[in-house]
Amino acid sequence: MKASLFKITFGTPEAFVPTRFAPPSRVPVKEIDAAAVPEIAFSVSRRGCKLVLPLTAATQLYGFGLQLRSFKHRGNKITCRVNADPRSTSGDSHAPVPFFVTNEGWAMYVDTARNAVFQCGSDRNTGMVLQAESAESKVMNSTDELYAARTSATSVLTVEIPVAEGVEVYFIKGDTVGDMVAAYNMLSGGGCMPPMWGLGNFYRCCGQFNEEQVMAIADGFRSLKLPCDILGLEPGWHTHSYSCSYVWSERFPHHKEMLEKLTAQGFKINLWEHAFAHPAAPIHDALIPYSGDYLVWNGLVPDFSLPEAVNIFADYHKKLCAEGITGFKLDECDGSDLTGGWSFPDCAMFPSGMDGEQYHHLFGTLYSKTIKQALGSNRILSEVRNLGALAASYPFVLYSDLYQFEDFLTGTVNAGFSGLLWAPELRHAENKDDLIRRLQLVAFSAQSLVNAWYLDKMPWLELDATDEVREILETRMRFLPYLYTAFYDYYTTGKPPVRALVCDYPAAGEVKDQFLFGDLVVAPIAPGKTGRDVWLPEGEWYGFFDGKRYEGGLHHVETDGVPLYVKAGTLLPIAEPVPYIAPDTVFDITLRAFGDCAEATCRLIEDDGLTDGTDYRVLTLRRGETVASKRYRILP
Amino acid sequence: MKASLFKITFGTPEAFVPTRFAPPSRVPVKEIDAAAVPEIAFSVSRRGCKLVLPLTAATQLYGFGLQLRSFKHRGNKITCRVNADPRSTSGDSHAPVPFFVTNEGWAMYVDTARNAVFQCGSDRNTGMVLQAESAESKVMNSTDELYAARTSATSVLTVEIPVAEGVEVYFIKGDTVGDMVAAYNMLSGGGCMPPMWGLGNFYRCCGQFNEEQVMAIADGFRSLKLPCDILGLEPGWHTHSYSCSYVWSERFPHHKEMLEKLTAQGFKINLWEHAFAHPAAPIHDALIPYSGDYLVWNGLVPDFSLPEAVNIFADYHKKLCAEGITGFKLDECDGSDLTGGWSFPDCAMFPSGMDGEQYHHLFGTLYSKTIKQALGSNRILSEVRNLGALAASYPFVLYSDLYQFEDFLTGTVNAGFSGLLWAPELRHAENKDDLIRRLQLVAFSAQSLVNAWYLDKMPWLELDATDEVREILETRMRFLPYLYTAFYDYYTTGKPPVRALVCDYPAAGEVKDQFLFGDLVVAPIAPGKTGRDVWLPEGEWYGFFDGKRYEGGLHHVETDGVPLYVKAGTLLPIAEPVPYIAPDTVFDITLRAFGDCAEATCRLIEDDGLTDGTDYRVLTLRRGETVASKRYRILP
Repeated sequence: MKASLFKITFGTPEAFVPTRFAPPSRVPVKEIDAAAVPEIAFSVSRRGCKLVLPLTAATQLYGFGLQLRSFKHRGNKITCRVNADPRSTSGDSHAPVPFFVTNEGWAMYVDTARNAVFQCGSDRNTGMVLQAESAESKVMNSTDELYAARTSATSVLTVEIPVAEGVEVYFIKGDTVGDMVAAYNMLSGGGCMPPMWGLGNFYRCCGQFNEEQVMAIADGFRSLKLPCDILGLEPGWHTHSYSCSYVWSERFPHHKEMLEKLTAQGFKINLWEHAFAHPAAPIHDALIPYSGDYLVWNGLVPDFSLPEAVNIFADYHKKLCAEGITGFKLDECDGSDLTGGWSFPDCAMFPSGMDGEQYHHLFGTLYSKTIKQALGSNRILSEVRNLGALAASYPFVLYSDLYQFEDFLTGTVNAGFSGLLWAPELRHAENKDDLIRRLQLVAFSAQSLVNAWYLDKMPWLELDATDEVREILETRMRFLPYLYTAFYDYYTTGKPPVRALVCDYPAAGEVKDQFLFGDLVVAPIAPGKTGRDVWLPEGEWYGFFDGKRYEGGLHHVETDGVPLYVKAGTLLPIAEPVPYIAPDTVFDITLRAFGDCAEATCRLIEDDGLTDGTDYRVLTLRRGETVASKRYRILP
Repeated sequence: MKASLFKITFGTPEAFVPTRFAPPSRVPVKEIDAAAVPEIAFSVSRRGCKLVLPLTAATQLYGFGLQLRSFKHRGNKITCRVNADPRSTSGDSHAPVPFFVTNEGWAMYVDTARNAVFQCGSDRNTGMVLQAESAESKVMNSTDELYAARTSATSVLTVEIPVAEGVEVYFIKGDTVGDMVAAYNMLSGGGCMPPMWGLGNFYRCCGQFNEEQVMAIADGFRSLKLPCDILGLEPGWHTHSYSCSYVWSERFPHHKEMLEKLTAQGFKINLWEHAFAHPAAPIHDALIPYSGDYLVWNGLVPDFSLPEAVNIFADYHKKLCAEGITGFKLDECDGSDLTGGWSFPDCAMFPSGMDGEQYHHLFGTLYSKTIKQALGSNRILSEVRNLGALAASYPFVLYSDLYQFEDFLTGTVNAGFSGLLWAPELRHAENKDDLIRRLQLVAFSAQSLVNAWYLDKMPWLELDATDEVREILETRMRFLPYLYTAFYDYYTTGKPPVRALVCDYPAAGEVKDQFLFGDLVVAPIAPGKTGRDVWLPEGEWYGFFDGKRYEGGLHHVETDGVPLYVKAGTLLPIAEPVPYIAPDTVFDITLRAFGDCAEATCRLIEDDGLTDGTDYRVLTLRRGETVASKRYRILP
């Protein structure tokens, strides 16, 4: 471990905080006394409590959960507030996390389920007469100049936690940003381990489809030879939705037969839902006493911190799973201030004693935990629209109704700072270029997801792009064993499979539009562009697709493909694409060597690919070697 | 008075609330005991306090200050939070006001300087088993359907006030929305009375101009015969800005001579500033002990609730006024969560004992009051970017960095609900049509403002639109005596000069893109459109420009001009345009009759047009009559 964790307790912490519901830490945490840290000023008032600590002029801050609009937070006011429509740099997020990591060897997690506010660098009125900066005239004339955040050597970080009379703060000291992020993930219980099929391609069908139409889509994937592992059904499968009944509608009169047929074709099936239980839901009446005091869309809001609510909900979902369902998309558990404020208010009360503000921060995580319970020991990789702190161990990927490519790329870069996974899903495309560029990003993200919930045809058919799409979906499958290994590292060491370059390379502190996929550098090109500048860390790199050699530094590249770079000395396991992952799938693997690989090794993970707590076998390969394995056949 | 006011005290109210700083109410307020109103549930917790009261299925809510993105608030979550970048329907606003008026004869003002949250219609989990709405399948498939707010007969309004342990609530009962709005304005001390020149046309010069360039613009207005009363200077007049020095820069080496010359040409001069005092400001050191504990752009934030800070600031500004300055533009006193969070934090502390959250709500109003003190008994109509509750008596007009025409129209419609004035300023135009359509709205708003702060030429010159612009600016001048009377009514009765149709016409509850200017109906056409639908209230109306007769109801109109309608029986005083208002300006007035005006009267206000507390003479005219007046010459 290249990082150490310290916990400091200030005042009297609240009862309902993320650590209360998180798995146990998998790393030691040393408790230190607040008095031993006099540079942190703590105070309590009727407002809540407040921490003020010094920043240097150079302190940069990364993290705060799934931030879609900003990468570096120095100078920003970050309010960790759950919001379904995070259109600004305010901190509002589907998954705000009160954790940040600095470029100066320390990181900080504030254990709160409140809308904590981080003023990431403010100057104080010290009461002293200051020297004027200079007698020179200095007038700012452009909007950029006017609003540019300024840093100063006398700056402070101010953290305000509403309502609370105290808080536990975890400091992490570490060598690199990546070490500290990994330590945070291990504090969270370690990263999640998805089933192997969860890393395949995922297609969500049109919400208005009936069972014939779903089966036609399934046939389409197989006949067009487009690799696909998972099909998702949208709200139309319910008899009532917004709020939900969780009962198969008349659009699916033979849903069991449909599930059997799809399963036989190698598909896993994922059902859309939210947790707001409509009066028509079979579990509605049982949930009444275990739900909050406000309804959402006329549906109950179950208090998933209560075992009663969890058991009612999970037991019902077990029956759906018994028919062949392998995952759920947990929608709308974020709630919005911006689209009509449709969720429960912050002042709502829940039978556990939590208020609405706290429950907004814990809702998605507790909901995910409930669904995981329904799935038993079957591994999943599902979707959720809210997660909070310490959620790394939950196999749920975040998504958004926003749809700017830049935001989706920023999410891909940022999510890994805070124990989150993110799907920059393809929903529709303006044109073929838009489709291809978006799908290139999708293929190199934690979840390869096409969400066609409002399209009655696969979006590439009308754009005459099926061949290009096949190539991208096959590329995803080629990297699947590699990505599976990266997830195993996430699970065992906390190292995120997808993360910002600054995690591994301190010099990459400004690189906000490239990311690491495993240990590869991905630099996606935006729709409408034919190329871009790519920054590579010091050393020797190779273009994956063109084999070209690059030195570290800035390069301009032009390509129809996705710029993808491999560090010299990497032995990369590339699989022959398969149409989907079956329990007995055997991958044909080519070990591709980049640069001098005389000393290089490559790891592959062998297990059943399906079950929690299974035996994992780590295969370590050298160039020219082969190995006996049920899962991999190493090609010469 | 067609409305009655009642005050109810719940719990222990806070010390720093808008009523503490507002002028005395000009209407009686009856105190009633909270126990007498059992339908309002009040509770206090560590979060703050909460009010829950029933709504009917039909209750609609209007108001909440300068809302630029929404008109009807039923179903919305409105957070009264000060924000410079109010891009959503969340309640965030340059000027949030915890006041709303319903369509059911009641209105409610919550006397708080907190980020109060109004959930405008939520359903509760009553703990009872409900009947499912119906056994029918009901699945929503479009985004609009999904997010549509729903109303229910069992809905409640929930108001949460953070931090506070109690609050005073003012209920207003009244016949019409307009009556209740007027009552709220009289509770605020009555509407403001601007100087006559304040209603003329206002042009803000490029921020980089020096004194020659400003004088050239002034000459340009006079030589092009474009009516203009006020010129504004932007940040460039300071030696240092962002934060401010309040010292004339070397761009204006002869600023006194410039001011004399401009004044002789009939211009009033307005200076841009904000309240953040840079170390180079002569008042900086004196302000240190009377400022908050956080700096903004390295500048002090004066606590304008303290007489010491007010006097230091106002006394300094008196010297600027003595040189010929007649007003100030008070920028950046809102602060933003969305553009870097550049203002002081909510948890900042001010020497009065206020915290940052409270000061955000009171800052603009107290700042305006400070500047008004600097101006003495000279009336002004200036600009400010934040106001709060009970601000009707302050002669400051709000503006925004947003620039969508639709938002600007929504602001024009909404501001009058809450004692606010709003300037839908023209800053630049994409093309001639954009220019004309925007300027048509500007001319029929509370302040006719062109803010060319980043344009070195008048925006119409390059668009070859000077003649059309002259006609619009002259139209403003034709209506100036009429508008002055409307402001006099605002001052004496609280009736806003610019307001939503629903204020006067209950049937207009859905009309969100037309407004009343005095008593005329204005239905601006958006840029890019050649016409629009116009809704007229029941009765007989006349097109002002075409003289055409209309019945109440919906009409489609196509025009290059602005659709403007006069109710039958109106005797309208129209002035010959003058280039600017001088103390001795005499208006040539034509009384235009619309429909049967046998019984109609028309009022004009005669006074010095300049001074607070002057004698006002109300001239009441009938058709064919004339009257002896120093200000008006009634043409036959």
